[in-house]
Amino acid sequence: MTDTNKESHYTENVQDHLKQVESLLHKHALVEEVVHKQEIPREDRHALVDTLLHKQHLAELRRKLDSLHPADIAYILEALPIEQRLLVWDLVKSERDGEILIEVSDAVRESLIATMNREELRAAAEQLDTDEIADLAPDLPHNVMRDLFRALPIEEREQLRAAMSYPEDSVGALMDFNMIHVREDVTLDRGDHFKGVLPINLIVVNEPDAIVGDLMLTDTIRLHPDDKAEQTAHAFERYDLVSAPVVEEEGKLIGRVTVNVVLDFIRTESESDLLNQAGLREDEDIFASVWKSVQNRWTWLALNLVTAFIASRVIGIFENSIEKLVALAALMPIIAGIGGNSGNQTITMIVRALALGQINAGNARKLFAKEVGVSGLNGLIWGSAVGLFAFLIYHSIPLGLVMTLAMVLNLLVAGLLGVLIPLTLYKLGRDPAAGSSVMITAITDSGGFFIFLGLATIFLT
Amino acid sequence: MTDTNKESHYTENVQDHLKQVESLLHKHALVEEVVHKQEIPREDRHALVDTLLHKQHLAELRRKLDSLHPADIAYILEALPIEQRLLVWDLVKSERDGEILIEVSDAVRESLIATMNREELRAAAEQLDTDEIADLAPDLPHNVMRDLFRALPIEEREQLRAAMSYPEDSVGALMDFNMIHVREDVTLDRGDHFKGVLPINLIVVNEPDAIVGDLMLTDTIRLHPDDKAEQTAHAFERYDLVSAPVVEEEGKLIGRVTVNVVLDFIRTESESDLLNQAGLREDEDIFASVWKSVQNRWTWLALNLVTAFIASRVIGIFENSIEKLVALAALMPIIAGIGGNSGNQTITMIVRALALGQINAGNARKLFAKEVGVSGLNGLIWGSAVGLFAFLIYHSIPLGLVMTLAMVLNLLVAGLLGVLIPLTLYKLGRDPAAGSSVMITAITDSGGFFIFLGLATIFLT
Repeated sequence: MTDTNKESHYTENVQDHLKQVESLLHKHALVEEVVHKQEIPREDRHALVDTLLHKQHLAELRRKLDSLHPADIAYILEALPIEQRLLVWDLVKSERDGEILIEVSDAVRESLIATMNREELRAAAEQLDTDEIADLAPDLPHNVMRDLFRALPIEEREQLRAAMSYPEDSVGALMDFNMIHVREDVTLDRGDHFKGVLPINLIVVNEPDAIVGDLMLTDTIRLHPDDKAEQTAHAFERYDLVSAPVVEEEGKLIGRVTVNVVLDFIRTESESDLLNQAGLREDEDIFASVWKSVQNRWTWLALNLVTAFIASRVIGIFENSIEKLVALAALMPIIAGIGGNSGNQTITMIVRALALGQINAGNARKLFAKEVGVSGLNGLIWGSAVGLFAFLIYHSIPLGLVMTLAMVLNLLVAGLLGVLIPLTLYKLGRDPAAGSSVMITAITDSGGFFIFLGLATIFLT
Repeated sequence: MTDTNKESHYTENVQDHLKQVESLLHKHALVEEVVHKQEIPREDRHALVDTLLHKQHLAELRRKLDSLHPADIAYILEALPIEQRLLVWDLVKSERDGEILIEVSDAVRESLIATMNREELRAAAEQLDTDEIADLAPDLPHNVMRDLFRALPIEEREQLRAAMSYPEDSVGALMDFNMIHVREDVTLDRGDHFKGVLPINLIVVNEPDAIVGDLMLTDTIRLHPDDKAEQTAHAFERYDLVSAPVVEEEGKLIGRVTVNVVLDFIRTESESDLLNQAGLREDEDIFASVWKSVQNRWTWLALNLVTAFIASRVIGIFENSIEKLVALAALMPIIAGIGGNSGNQTITMIVRALALGQINAGNARKLFAKEVGVSGLNGLIWGSAVGLFAFLIYHSIPLGLVMTLAMVLNLLVAGLLGVLIPLTLYKLGRDPAAGSSVMITAITDSGGFFIFLGLATIFLT
């Protein structure tokens, strides 16, 4: 449901809207506070809360919200702490609930849905198109979904079932069912078979009596509902598409994907990439409870704790050497740390090239050679720097040489595995972006400690 | 210059095109190899290279390239090692050079431009619109730009000057100058003043004799060339825009921004975020020379080396304690590592909320309280785990308690500074995404070692 609201909110900045809403909420809160502080008996207090002043702020707030685009209301809801968020949500006209729920982030949507009963949720969802209901479905209670299915006409029920059946990363999950069917000529095509695309600009520049079959483009991109959404997004970027038809095997047209959905998809993907890199499982409502945040973050910390325990035990093996030469304890984190940094640089390059489809059997070996070359050269440069550092602090040439050698070896390990880990995950059909970074850091930590302390044990103690 | 090529390449996958090109290049290379291996004298060799077979592969390759969309050719150029890339670039019709240069990544564009002379570059650039020439400008030699300016008609010369004057992150850098001017009514508006927007679908559904002034929408979004590109991208997402007019102070319409440019902008931004997180200064051609790659990566490694040296010196202060209790050396990386992970999670949340404009003076304190709460709780949970680990390995209750306390304190530091660092960078007008991660890791490393070894020195030795 694309809102074509034409009000003046477009020309204002959404952050100004937020400030105005916050100021009204603040005035409202002040009145509440005054009422409470005066320790007025409950009955009288109720009367006071209902003063003209108080009502006036809420009415003003409601008017402000009515004038806003649903996406702007969604933005404001996301930026407000939970109590104020729910107050604003109460003031929004219930016939706008659906379009706003579609716009808010998953985490905030959850907090809003939690306050709504079965009837309200059904009413909100019924305002939406079937492809939008499918987007909401994972957050709706089962009984609400059952009510919705029953209430839908048979054609839309089938659409909803279809939309919900596609995996999240497929074209089917992106498409909508809004299409105008134009007959190719006088014969009626009842089978919904896809014939071609008739761009609206061709309609405008041609004579009104032109035949559709002559004007339409038949050799344009066609998507299949099982196509990968990521690939489709790349096609939109490459060919500057604005919309593309979704066609099934037998040539049946079942929907379309528009550029606005692709825009949202790309933004969501890139955000989840950034969140995953820091080990945040999902988008976190910035005002989520402490306990919810801890749950969102624990998997990553636990995983890193395990790898840290392993690294600790590797150091434990060499406790004798460290006892003899305590400088090793101070120097070992340098080798491990720079190895991790260098490995993550390689991983980032490879993951990106894999995502763009630039790596194949033909050039993988060249990439290996390049990354090993970069690692080796970096090892010599930074190895010399740390070797010099060790010599200057501890006045021992052998210690400096061991530092240099350990750095070269650890960076070579980082370079080799920085290529190998994402390529292997990719070959196994896994997402090379998820997990590569933890693995390389674990290896360059434990491996770095082992290489450095091992060399030191052999040559220095 | 939007290419509206209608050939069948849309329905094929771009990776199939790449495979076909690679196969033709491979056949070509085989012939070359045969010729070389036979040690034929130079004169005869030349004759052999010109065999029908050899010519045939190149001709086939040229035909294949002619049939491809410029974006697909760009994709193929990016995926090919440098020698093959330049061979393909030679085979591309020179009148397509411009549109392909616009599509390739910065790194690959540089490698292609390096092979072209002044005349070729001028010819390629002349095929482009002024806003596209402005995109190429940073990569073109000065004398080519001078030639171009001289050759342009006066109006386009002004457009080019304007387009080049806008900062990279502004609307001015995104906009193009393609507009159809429609008169609002019979009076001619010579001043280019922006009156309103007339969506093409309104033209189609209305009578041919309708007055433009009656149909047009006057209260739509208007961009200013100095607006931030990032904000504009958010507006396109929020309001599902397909194009938006760019209007100067006095109401003069100077250009438009289209959704396809916004799509490219969002993708480029998200990629540079991911690259920056790993300390890659810019997009790296995956087949760049080892030396170029080393240059691209060195700043980050050098910066991390400095912070690692500092951490090493912090450990150095406590060498006496480590000598007495060598277990400290094995346990200290755990405290530092988990602190860094936790701090980076907080940073990621805050940077994201800042980018979405969700943090302001009103809610910053609440966010502080929340992150400190999360850190404290995480400290107790993971602190207990590491305390137990230390106790099980070293059978010392005091050592376990020191581990637990050090973990709580280091995670509190990570949480506090994880909020404070990005907020401070933001207030100073700096990009909170760049540098926050290095700073928090430096602090949780050195700070973690200091807290743990300091507590151990006080209570255990």
